[in-house]
Amino acid sequence: MSLSIRNQIPGTAVSVTPGEVMATVKVRLDGGQEITAAVTREAVEELGIFVGSSVRALFKSTEVSLATGPVEGLSIRNQLPGTVTDVSTGGAMAGVKVSVDGGELTAVITKDAVTELGLTSGSSVVALIKSTEISLATS
Amino acid sequence: MSLSIRNQIPGTAVSVTPGEVMATVKVRLDGGQEITAAVTREAVEELGIFVGSSVRALFKSTEVSLATGPVEGLSIRNQLPGTVTDVSTGGAMAGVKVSVDGGELTAVITKDAVTELGLTSGSSVVALIKSTEISLATS
Amino acid sequence: MSLSIRNQIPGTAVSVTPGEVMATVKVRLDGGQEITAAVTREAVEELGIFVGSSVRALFKSTEVSLATGPVEGLSIRNQLPGTVTDVSTGGAMAGVKVSVDGGELTAVITKDAVTELGLTSGSSVVALIKSTEISLATS
Repeated sequence: MSLSIRNQIPGTAVSVTPGEVMATVKVRLDGGQEITAAVTREAVEELGIFVGSSVRALFKSTEVSLATGPVEGLSIRNQLPGTVTDVSTGGAMAGVKVSVDGGELTAVITKDAVTELGLTSGSSVVALIKSTEISLATS
Repeated sequence: MSLSIRNQIPGTAVSVTPGEVMATVKVRLDGGQEITAAVTREAVEELGIFVGSSVRALFKSTEVSLATGPVEGLSIRNQLPGTVTDVSTGGAMAGVKVSVDGGELTAVITKDAVTELGLTSGSSVVALIKSTEISLATS
Repeated sequence: MSLSIRNQIPGTAVSVTPGEVMATVKVRLDGGQEITAAVTREAVEELGIFVGSSVRALFKSTEVSLATGPVEGLSIRNQLPGTVTDVSTGGAMAGVKVSVDGGELTAVITKDAVTELGLTSGSSVVALIKSTEISLATS
């Protein structure tokens, strides 16, 4: 089985906070960063995700935003610093590859954003992913 | 009202689970599949969605991921098997039409993903949609 | 048709940039702000969206992030300044109402983010929405 989801990062669940409907799961990535995923509580129960579970954090490239530096005072829980390794531009959108500790990400952002931020290979960026955009896979 | 949202699939609410902020609504699609939508509790109350309500499940094409087969151990609640009917490729992204029981979906994924998964007309795929990406409409 | 999508803001299309697969549409909101929506080119054509078209920008509350001030050097095109009018907290998530010029938004973010950012009624915030998360409706 192959998945179109470009971003699949391995890690370990370090906390699980269930609400009535949703649950937040903190995951320590193998690269050392910590991220938060907000998934349904049902999914956490069915997958049997506990503290210590090995999981992969999955998120579509269209869900990744890029900043030119760390952002404070932001609700987005997940900020992964990295370096741009490639930019491919279409008519409206652009795909940006970002090397981060422990792996490589793909972000799809508008062509306008690439221009305004001046992104090219070698640019330092921070990849931002809202926790509601992160899915989890086991095994 | 016309909507840019490409994917609008009719069905019937079969369960409603309210939390403090969010609610999950399970919908049996007219094609027979069951999906879960995570929307605000406020929306469920204002729209008056109950078990038995006729609803449409709406999700943007950029929110649809594709897999080449069923995926186990995944937090993504919604997996609709189907067959690729068309692939159109741009500079960064690709649009993929997928015929599923009861309708047709559009997925927008990266051009890279189309290449890696070898997707062409006739490919068997499973469309994946995170429950937080599904909106509901009542008529 | 009633929609579960909490955020529906009226405006006028001021530019349309089609790519092969996606198109970006800039919309001047009635409150004066300008936002960008990235939707499929097919949707733009089918809905007949041109410069001057009246549209509504739609986005799910789970797609809205909040910052405590304007953020520079960020790929997220859409930043709407406003004031928090209400916070409701669940077990994992929180719903935050934000009054902006020309309307009111709902953001669903993690409970942790509300705590860290110290959000309460009266807090100044900037609502951030990625352009791929914005849909368009014509009446």
